[in-house]
Amino acid sequence: MIKIQAREARERFEKILRGRGVPVKRAAKVALEMVRNSLEGTYSHGINRFARLVEYIDKGYIRPEASPRLLGAMGAFERYDGELGFGITNAWFCMGRAIEIAKTQGIGCVAIGHTNHWLRAATYGYQACEAGMAGICWTNTRPNMPTWGALDPHLGNNPLVFAFPFSDGDVVVDMAMSQFSYGALEVAALAGKQMEVPAGMDEKGQITTDPGAVFKTRRALPIGYWKGAALSFALDIFAGGLSLGNTTSAVGRLGTDEYSLSQVFIAINYRAATPEGVSEEIVRGAVDDLLSSRPDGSGKPIVYPGQRMRATREKNLREGIPVNEKVWDDIVNLER
Amino acid sequence: MIKIQAREARERFEKILRGRGVPVKRAAKVALEMVRNSLEGTYSHGINRFARLVEYIDKGYIRPEASPRLLGAMGAFERYDGELGFGITNAWFCMGRAIEIAKTQGIGCVAIGHTNHWLRAATYGYQACEAGMAGICWTNTRPNMPTWGALDPHLGNNPLVFAFPFSDGDVVVDMAMSQFSYGALEVAALAGKQMEVPAGMDEKGQITTDPGAVFKTRRALPIGYWKGAALSFALDIFAGGLSLGNTTSAVGRLGTDEYSLSQVFIAINYRAATPEGVSEEIVRGAVDDLLSSRPDGSGKPIVYPGQRMRATREKNLREGIPVNEKVWDDIVNLER
Repeated sequence: MIKIQAREARERFEKILRGRGVPVKRAAKVALEMVRNSLEGTYSHGINRFARLVEYIDKGYIRPEASPRLLGAMGAFERYDGELGFGITNAWFCMGRAIEIAKTQGIGCVAIGHTNHWLRAATYGYQACEAGMAGICWTNTRPNMPTWGALDPHLGNNPLVFAFPFSDGDVVVDMAMSQFSYGALEVAALAGKQMEVPAGMDEKGQITTDPGAVFKTRRALPIGYWKGAALSFALDIFAGGLSLGNTTSAVGRLGTDEYSLSQVFIAINYRAATPEGVSEEIVRGAVDDLLSSRPDGSGKPIVYPGQRMRATREKNLREGIPVNEKVWDDIVNLER
Repeated sequence: MIKIQAREARERFEKILRGRGVPVKRAAKVALEMVRNSLEGTYSHGINRFARLVEYIDKGYIRPEASPRLLGAMGAFERYDGELGFGITNAWFCMGRAIEIAKTQGIGCVAIGHTNHWLRAATYGYQACEAGMAGICWTNTRPNMPTWGALDPHLGNNPLVFAFPFSDGDVVVDMAMSQFSYGALEVAALAGKQMEVPAGMDEKGQITTDPGAVFKTRRALPIGYWKGAALSFALDIFAGGLSLGNTTSAVGRLGTDEYSLSQVFIAINYRAATPEGVSEEIVRGAVDDLLSSRPDGSGKPIVYPGQRMRATREKNLREGIPVNEKVWDDIVNLER
């Protein structure tokens, strides 16, 4: 591991993107958000993922100049075609539209099809919180998880976000429908570790905590078994059905790379017609109550979702972002 | 087990409710929905729960004549005080308002505080589907689940619904954030069965499938461990923060009975600006793909969420609803 300063990473990313013909402002936004993901602790969707982003530009899956095109609208609901633009800028646009709508309508909902991977899901939840709105959003993915009782993947892990502003650090849940990502399983397998809780099925069809076994069968477990499988499917139906874009099965038919996804963004102007500070007080009461839970002695930290983000960000700003040396070398070599 | 015809149950319920001073139309609606829950396979929130509903009227937690009172509104968002009316009629009213708003606004969102248990969560998803809308709704509950790493319950199991219309049977996910309800654990413990997957913590703090052990520790597992704990908390924050009503912790402070809950209802008019039949085709493609999954040989049925409801309903209409004899006797004795 080496440490890279956020600013250095951003400047390098911008240069690489501009070298691929990405317009200046857009390159700056994509670089900013990818580095921010690492800064705030979501390493899998930050610097570690940048080389793949560039690969997808080179392969033509991402069209650097494309912007969302309005397909239809009614009141507080809008539908866009993402035209295969950057997932980050498309998603930012959509949550931005939802926020704008919610300013006068109380709630805004934007669906987008034919867009790309939005990298860190939580980003668009934080975007809503920064605008003083509660945010809900989700994306579908390519098939990467079997349904309960099945051998082959027909479900996506479809990350889902619920975000609510809070002055001590926004309450932000960002969760995929699989218990663990294949990335996390791979890291644990290489380190010779077992997962803390059941991770998937082994070759005999038994539930196992062995990451290597699950990595082999590709039978990752949905959270809550049949429950997460059901929620994953519903999120996909909503994403495809609202955007008129691809469902997970249609994304799977595009090949083994993941592009042309569907997403939904909802912003709720919960402060509308609310006396100043009332909602904040309600959230504080709930947070204080949760944090007063009696620890079970296992040493697991008792936290509210989103609580640790600020500290991680501050540490990484101060000390630099931990990056694998080879990952960084590969990025440096992307410069043209 | 005896079999009770839906019509007989409904008439008896209406009579009992009217005997408690419940207005005629409201008694009919509550009776209809409680029997429908059993008819459609959610036995825990139908006939089996009726005696408790009456108990809550008698205790004054449910005010039979109360209706939601508008607290504030902005565009497509409305907030109500449930005035401790029936959970069923309050929730039906709220999803009805969300649907009405969505007819012209594309989406409608209604939050309600100080309401009561809505019984089967899926009911309000089906309500949206029957109006040709996609529906999302959730409720908080009293504290009944510890967060990950904790001994004592500070989270609710907060059922969440995603519902999307589909001609073969609506796609409806209705899931609590706990892997199993205490009701289900109790039934399994009495039958001397183990749960199919981990259900909670035993007295040594080990994850167990033994329902009796979990029933004793009251340490039910959230779906996906830390993930379901986080989602449960977020749903509660949204329910309290949007309605300005009670969060789970505040409900817990009311005592050991469960009343004065908070709920959120969203209806999405996804057919707005959509060519006829396009969404249906998208859903059908996803359903067909899911159902083409290769079974793993365990005998678990591969289904989409909501798929089996119609068949259950038809069977129970034909053969009568299976009811425990003692449960039915207790109901009969409620007549005045």
